[in-house]
Parts: sequence; C-alpha cells; structure tokens
Amino acid sequence: MTTALKTIKSLAPLLDRVLVQRIKADAKTAGGIFLPDSAVKELNEAKVLAVGPGMMNKEGKRIAMGVSPGDKVLIPQYGGSPIKVGEEEYSLFRDHDILAKINE
Amino acid sequence: MTTALKTIKSLAPLLDRVLVQRIKADAKTAGGIFLPDSAVKELNEAKVLAVGPGMMNKEGKRIAMGVSPGDKVLIPQYGGSPIKVGEEEYSLFRDHDILAKINE
Amino acid sequence: MTTALKTIKSLAPLLDRVLVQRIKADAKTAGGIFLPDSAVKELNEAKVLAVGPGMMNKEGKRIAMGVSPGDKVLIPQYGGSPIKVGEEEYSLFRDHDILAKINE
Amino acid sequence: MTTALKTIKSLAPLLDRVLVQRIKADAKTAGGIFLPDSAVKELNEAKVLAVGPGMMNKEGKRIAMGVSPGDKVLIPQYGGSPIKVGEEEYSLFRDHDILAKINE
Amino acid sequence: MTTALKTIKSLAPLLDRVLVQRIKADAKTAGGIFLPDSAVKELNEAKVLAVGPGMMNKEGKRIAMGVSPGDKVLIPQYGGSPIKVGEEEYSLFRDHDILAKINE
Amino acid sequence: MTTALKTIKSLAPLLDRVLVQRIKADAKTAGGIFLPDSAVKELNEAKVLAVGPGMMNKEGKRIAMGVSPGDKVLIPQYGGSPIKVGEEEYSLFRDHDILAKINE
Amino acid sequence: MTTALKTIKSLAPLLDRVLVQRIKADAKTAGGIFLPDSAVKELNEAKVLAVGPGMMNKEGKRIAMGVSPGDKVLIPQYGGSPIKVGEEEYSLFRDHDILAKINE
Repeated sequence: MTTALKTIKSLAPLLDRVLVQRIKADAKTAGGIFLPDSAVKELNEAKVLAVGPGMMNKEGKRIAMGVSPGDKVLIPQYGGSPIKVGEEEYSLFRDHDILAKINE
Repeated sequence: MTTALKTIKSLAPLLDRVLVQRIKADAKTAGGIFLPDSAVKELNEAKVLAVGPGMMNKEGKRIAMGVSPGDKVLIPQYGGSPIKVGEEEYSLFRDHDILAKINE
Repeated sequence: MTTALKTIKSLAPLLDRVLVQRIKADAKTAGGIFLPDSAVKELNEAKVLAVGPGMMNKEGKRIAMGVSPGDKVLIPQYGGSPIKVGEEEYSLFRDHDILAKINE
Repeated sequence: MTTALKTIKSLAPLLDRVLVQRIKADAKTAGGIFLPDSAVKELNEAKVLAVGPGMMNKEGKRIAMGVSPGDKVLIPQYGGSPIKVGEEEYSLFRDHDILAKINE
Repeated sequence: MTTALKTIKSLAPLLDRVLVQRIKADAKTAGGIFLPDSAVKELNEAKVLAVGPGMMNKEGKRIAMGVSPGDKVLIPQYGGSPIKVGEEEYSLFRDHDILAKINE
Repeated sequence: MTTALKTIKSLAPLLDRVLVQRIKADAKTAGGIFLPDSAVKELNEAKVLAVGPGMMNKEGKRIAMGVSPGDKVLIPQYGGSPIKVGEEEYSLFRDHDILAKINE
Repeated sequence: MTTALKTIKSLAPLLDRVLVQRIKADAKTAGGIFLPDSAVKELNEAKVLAVGPGMMNKEGKRIAMGVSPGDKVLIPQYGGSPIKVGEEEYSLFRDHDILAKINE
C-alpha cells in the first residue's frame, strides 16, 4: 500500500495490531563485497516500531499485548498488511500472529 | 454503488460501520506539473466522515468505536462497501478493519 | 421469488429480517426527457417497509432492531432474498446487513 | 426423498424443524383456462403443517418456535429437505430459515 | 465400511451418535409380483437400533437424546457413516441430523 | 509417518488423542486357505492402545475420555494421523471421532 | 524462513507456540555404511527446545502448556512454521498440534 505519510512515526496501530519493519540481511559478503539488492534474501526477523492498545475482552478490558516497541521478533512468511512510506516498507500484524521474540 | 443521495452528510452509518473517504495523492509533481488522473496512485489513507454507534455486546451495551469523525486513518487495500455520491467516492468499513490512526 | 401475495402488506418478517424496496432512480434526465428502463441505474437506497421483532439473545430477550418502517437506508449491492409481488420487487435483509440510515 | 409413509400426519419434526408444503400457483388463467403443470410457476409460499419442539439452549430449555401449524409463510428459494409422500411433496426447514409470516 | 462384527448388537454408539438401519421399500408390486433389487427405491426412513449416551454440555452433563431405540425416523438423503455387518447395511448419524420421528 | 520409535508403548497421546491399531481381517478363507495381503480388506475396527488425559474445559478441568485402553472401537474410514513403527501401522484419533465401542 | 539469528537459543516462542527440531534418522545402515542425505527419511519425532508461556483464557490466566523443553514429541507430518538458522532447521507448532510425547 502506498501512503502519503511523511514519517512512519505518525502511524498509531489500532486494537491488537503491531507495526514492524523487516530486518534486512546484510548486503555485504563476508569478504566485504556488496551484493546487488536482488541477492539479499528477505528475512523473517523484524523490529517492532509501534503496538496498538490491545483487543478488548467481553468485559471491555484491554488484553495485554505480547510484544513492545523495540522488540526484535520473528514474523510469519506470509500475511500482514504491507505499508510503504517513501522507499521504506513496513507491515502491520495482529499480536497473536507474531511467532516469537528474539532475545539478544 | 450508485446512490441518489444529494449529500454524503445525510448518511448515518449503522452499528460499527465507519464512513471514510480516501485521500487523493497530490496530482502535482514536485516541479509543479499537473499529472493526468490515471497517473495519481490510489492511497490507503482516508478521512473518517462519520461513525456508527458501535456494535452491542451480549449485555446489550454499545462497544466504543476506535475512531472518530475527523480522524485520518489507514484502511486496508481491499474490502469495504464503496458508495458513490455524484462524482465523489466513499467507503464503509467495520471499525475493527481500520488498521491504524494517523497522527499529524 | 414469485409469490401469490395480493399485497406486500400481508408480509410480516420473522426474527431480525427487514423488508425493503429499492428506490428507483429518476427515469427523467435533467432536461426532462424520459429514459428507457434499461438506462435507469439500480440504486442501493431502499425504503424499509416492515421489520421483524428481532433476534433473541441467550437470555431469551429480543435484540432491538436498528431500523424502523419508513426509514430510508443504504443496502449492500448483493445479498438479501428477492420477493416479487405482482410487478413490484422487494428484498428481505438481516438487520445487521443494512449499511446505513439516510437522514433527510 | 421417497418415503413409505402412508400419511404426512405421522411425521413429527425434531428440534427446530418445520414441516411445510408449498402452495401451488393457481393453474387457471384469469380467463378461466387451465394451464398445463409445467406452466405453473413454483411459489415460495408454504403452509406450515407441523413444527418441532424447538432447539434447546445451554440451560436445557426449549427455544420457542417462530411459526405454528396453520401459518402461511415465505420460504427461501433453496434449501430445506424435500420429502415425498405418494404424489405430494413437502419440505423440512429450520425455524430460523423461514423468512416471513403471511397474514391474511 | 466393512467390519468383522458378528452382530450389530455388539455396537455401542458413542456421544450423540444414533445407529439406524434403513427400511427397505416393499419389493413386491401391488399385484404381488416381486421386483428385482435394483428396482426397489432406497427410502429415507430408518429404524433406530441404538443410541449413544449424548454429548456433554459445558457443565459436564449429558444432553438428552432426541430419539430412542425402536423409533422409526426420517434420515437425511446424504451423510452418516455407513457400516456393513455381513450382508446388512447400517448407518451412524448424529442425533441432531435425524429430521423427524415417524409416529404410527 | 515414519518414526525412529523402538516400541509403540513409549508413545503417550496428548490431550484428547486416542492411539489405536486397526484390526486386520482374517487372512484365511473359511476353507482355511491363506489369502495374499492385497485380498484382505481393511476393516474399520481398531483396538485402543493408549489414550490422552483429555481436553481441558474452560474451568481448567479435564473432560473424561470416552474410550479406554483395551477397548475395541469403530473408527471412521478417513482421518486420523497414521504412525508407523517398524512394520506396524497405528493411528491417532481425537476422542470424539471414535464412532462406537464394540462390546463382545 | 531464513533468519539472521546467530543461535536458536535467542528465540523465545510467544503464546502457546512450541519450538522443536526434528530428530534425524540415523544416516548409517545397520552394517555401518553412511547413507547420502537424500536417502535419510524425514522422521516425525522432534525434540522440544523452547515453549511459550501459554495462551490466555477468558479470565486472563495462562493455560498450562502440554510439553516442556527437553521432551521428545511426535509432530504432525504437515504444518508448523519452518525456521532456518545457519544450516539447521527448526519448526514452531502450536501446543495443541503436538500429537504425543515419547517416553523413553
């Protein structure tokens, strides 16, 4: 999806949505040679940029989100809503679709 | 959908529906040249014009809507019910289908 | 569906069903020339003729209907059960399928 | 479905099932000429012959049926289980599939 | 399904399953002439041979079955699990799939 | 599925799963002649080897299983997860998919 | 899925997810000859490396996981999210998709 957004920071996810950006594989080989873009494999690791307030349960209370901004996470290969701001690509996932946190 | 509506203002969404209008990309290049209509990419940003009173939960209370008239929001690429009033196009989405609010 | 009904008034919708009749577009151009039937676009505005008593919730109470007889409403492009009485066509929709009320 | 039933009266619908018989269109034109069977359009009006005791809710109480034997009703174009007793055809519908009552 | 069962009486349906055997149409014409097997139409009437103890509701209580052994019932045209014991054919249905009881 | 299991006895089904082994039809005709393997029809009778502890209901209590190790049961024609240990084949079914117990 | 992970140990499954690694069949025949990789059949046994904290029930309490790190389990033939770290392959399953524990 193309947007007129000037900065991704103005995007506030609703409900249980999580805004992430895929982490790009290093475009440099071990020997220091830069690879063309098409040779860089897309990874399924992403950084959480923003999270929604959570879904509401039947009593009207927010269900706590499983991830927080700044978390490194593993996202599924498919799914999510792609968002493009300028040249950068982002995705919105539901909280329960995030597979795992990556602790470093 | 074609309507005989004279003004979109007479439309009051029911339940958790949200009436939005897509924001058009600027039809002018940086250099100030106007682009023909087909060259203007459709964005997924929209302005909320009206919202319904919300769905009712099992106790018969209205569930609060996540967006309000005037909000700028990110809508999904597909889905929603298109409405045409004169030359203008609008869409009705369910509240939980709106992806994110855009804060400016 | 063809019926032997003499008048649509004898039809009492059950549960949360809403009996509507599509509003026909004006078959006259601005200049006052009458258009042939096939040139009149079908609109998605309808008038509510009758409503059912509402679905029952789990406690056995009726859930209030969102629309009332006399309301002008926006109906979805597809769906609903068509009914024909004489030359007139009507439709039955579920209450939650009605998109919006039209206030005039 | 073909049955060995001698009379439809021996059929007692279970749960929320409704036994109906379609009302045949008058096989006579306005001028009094009888039409061959294939020229008589099938109507969607039916007479309720028998109703089941109703589904049970989670507390084990029967949910009241919306129609009663003797009611004239509007049935959907498709669906239902057809039953044939001798030359006569009947149908079993679920209570919530009956569209409307016809008051005369 | 072929079984090694010696008698269908050793089969005890589980949960809300109902063991039935289709009633065969009379293989004799009104004039007393026996018809070959292929000319005998399959009926949808069946005799209930055994019933399970019923499904359990959320409180862990059994939900009463709608039919009992010995009942004559109307079964749907399709569905059910076929069972063959020797030359005889039987079927297992869920209780709520049985359409009607036949009272004689 | 092929496994490295040395014995099926080391397999402990989880939740409401039931480990069964199909009972083979007698590979000998009434006259005592042994039939080749392909002539032996697959039966739908099975012996229960092990059962899981049961699903948990919403209050966190285990729902009792309908079958026990040692039971002879009727299993559906299709479904289940096949498991191979050496030359032997087994299947895992959910408790509610088992059709009937066989009492001998 | 390809990842930039340096070690699988930094992966913390969310909700009811279970991180497993398939157990490889012995690449050596009984006679001690090593088999090429393509001749080693993929098994459905796996070792549990890490488990999530469990799903939350409607009261907001965690539902206990059925398996623990170190468990040997039987996984379904299909499904799960594959993860690749260096040359090693792992999978993420939901807790209720794990078929059985293997006790040795």
